Amino acid sequence: MRVIGIDPGLTRCGIGVVEGKVGRPPTMIAVGVVRTPVIEDVAARLVSLERGINEWLDEYQPEAVGIERVFAQHNLNSVMDTAQASGVAALTAARRGVPVTFHTPSEVKAAVTGSGSADKAQVAAMVTRILKLGAAPRPADAADALAIAITQVWRGAGTNRYAAAVAAAKGKR
Amino acid sequence: MRVIGIDPGLTRCGIGVVEGKVGRPPTMIAVGVVRTPVIEDVAARLVSLERGINEWLDEYQPEAVGIERVFAQHNLNSVMDTAQASGVAALTAARRGVPVTFHTPSEVKAAVTGSGSADKAQVAAMVTRILKLGAAPRPADAADALAIAITQVWRGAGTNRYAAAVAAAKGKR
Repeated sequence: MRVIGIDPGLTRCGIGVVEGKVGRPPTMIAVGVVRTPVIEDVAARLVSLERGINEWLDEYQPEAVGIERVFAQHNLNSVMDTAQASGVAALTAARRGVPVTFHTPSEVKAAVTGSGSADKAQVAAMVTRILKLGAAPRPADAADALAIAITQVWRGAGTNRYAAAVAAAKGKR
Repeated sequence: MRVIGIDPGLTRCGIGVVEGKVGRPPTMIAVGVVRTPVIEDVAARLVSLERGINEWLDEYQPEAVGIERVFAQHNLNSVMDTAQASGVAALTAARRGVPVTFHTPSEVKAAVTGSGSADKAQVAAMVTRILKLGAAPRPADAADALAIAITQVWRGAGTNRYAAAVAAAKGKR
């Protein structure tokens, strides 16, 4: 199955296309970054991001999309931009009927390195090894997107099913 | 000028349509809420939200859209959903060329009540008075959306111009 992993961001949104199945080493099909100009306002950048992601979806026709779940960190302003970018990425895939799963950063780290607290260098090294690449993908957002895509192949929609069950239970309260 | 104010949210997204000009009492054209089902997954809800906002934009053809800027608060998970909803709202308007301005909660409170620290009840009371309504709009998200629309009419894109200048200065560094 072919999946796209997305590391959401407004300045650099990492995109990784991977093909594979559970329990087998996946193959990299393509990797890259969608950039939007810092000098434009946020709404215009979201439009550029949508256009860029649509081009990737058109070209690679994934069966599923995995997106890294955004968490609040140090820089709250940039987290909000990242969350807005994440919303646009999820919308763009779901609008064409492609199932979307969110994976937490620790799920992604655990899936590719075995440890939920691995650092960025360890994730990039494992991505390089799993996909049998000559060198670690650059920039870091591209490597992260491939890690998310690998997670999507190996974990599938498991995370989503859990989230849906939690949401359904909440709705019943 | 006709504007739409949006109080972004995934469960309830407030929408307020207001007509007016700087320095004069604006008029309410319409108010309501776009709801998305809690039992669906986030990506599907963002698609429903996009559809709902598009219907409002189609029907009321605003010249500008104001959106309340999302800030991190107590419940981080729901803030991330709200930020994703905000991204979809901004995208939906900007994609059709309608200028989008983000207003902070304190800018909205200050614009309608004179105090950036007014509470929800004070904001709803002033919205009711400014728009000469018989009663405060329900639910609260609808009243907030009208407050954002009033802010958009009175403050215009001032906030955006400042943000654009900051972003441009950052880009030059």
